[in-house]
Amino acid sequence: MLIPEPVQRLIDAFSRLPGVGPKTASRLTFFLLRGDETLSVELAEALAGLKANTAYCQQCWNITTIGRTLCEICDHPRRDPAVICVVEEPLDVLALERTGGFEGHYHVLHGALSPIEGIGPEDIKIAELVERLSKTPAGEIIIATNPSMEGDATAMYLQQQLAGSGARITRLARGLPVGGDLEYADHNTLLRALAGRQEMEE
Amino acid sequence: MLIPEPVQRLIDAFSRLPGVGPKTASRLTFFLLRGDETLSVELAEALAGLKANTAYCQQCWNITTIGRTLCEICDHPRRDPAVICVVEEPLDVLALERTGGFEGHYHVLHGALSPIEGIGPEDIKIAELVERLSKTPAGEIIIATNPSMEGDATAMYLQQQLAGSGARITRLARGLPVGGDLEYADHNTLLRALAGRQEMEE
Repeated sequence: MLIPEPVQRLIDAFSRLPGVGPKTASRLTFFLLRGDETLSVELAEALAGLKANTAYCQQCWNITTIGRTLCEICDHPRRDPAVICVVEEPLDVLALERTGGFEGHYHVLHGALSPIEGIGPEDIKIAELVERLSKTPAGEIIIATNPSMEGDATAMYLQQQLAGSGARITRLARGLPVGGDLEYADHNTLLRALAGRQEMEE
Repeated sequence: MLIPEPVQRLIDAFSRLPGVGPKTASRLTFFLLRGDETLSVELAEALAGLKANTAYCQQCWNITTIGRTLCEICDHPRRDPAVICVVEEPLDVLALERTGGFEGHYHVLHGALSPIEGIGPEDIKIAELVERLSKTPAGEIIIATNPSMEGDATAMYLQQQLAGSGARITRLARGLPVGGDLEYADHNTLLRALAGRQEMEE
């Protein structure tokens, strides 16, 4: 009532984004109101084009530009199709790509198993991975789900499902984060770091 | 290159919002990609309608719905036009309205004087306030600019400009914030709280 309807409408829409509360939503809206119109227009157009111009890679289920069957990674001549890194979300692909330390292919599950949230194997891209491997066998499958309850459950389920695939199945290492402080490491991380200790090379 | 262009475009647009870094922008974009299309569409439409459907109140310069000459506050029969609270931004009006403690009218400056940023008296709605008062004199003008360097400079300038208006000119009280801790109050706030000390009523 006090806030004009067009303004309140945008505040409400922003509030539905994750991590954006009513105060942040107001701040963003009044920032856009104050500035010139180009940013609002650019945002509106980018939003409208987001779903319309994107598609899923039919091999790894990562997001790609519409019109492509395979994403740029699956299509890249110098990437090794025999090593498949399985992640939960497209953002995880970005994080791994930023490291520059992985030259293989990906498989994006679009979620993790979670009995509490009612997410079962049929809700994420597990069948697609099994089918993919039956067509083109891989040498190694790196399971890179999150180090969380759901990620661990997903990793164990995948391990069972992929046992007969002939591929070596590995998981990302657990241990102390680089730059971290042993004193502040949590109980479980410290236990994992101890259990996974390695010989020092001379 | 790795991120499809329609996705990168939205990340870039979000990144231009205040307080939104590249990581938050990615998170918001991938959230929208994952969810169904209604939220993206609603956001896009609300953005498109923001400027198109809003206007400035021709009396107090607060934001109002398009088609109205006066905002709901200026137009309200039970609000006192003889008391004008001068604020920097429309968001400040909202903050004051939420208190429920003010029954007068507002005047929104749309900024504060800042020689460093090159914002002078002609860049904010000071002439409009002087003109408004020359037409309909007020009994009290409450200067509610921010307790910052720029807000203080603006308040002092306004005081000079409005000295001949015949209105009582007041400023919001400075002191310890309610619920605050004296031990953690900064030097200037404590000095102000001392200087502004008041008799206790019996």
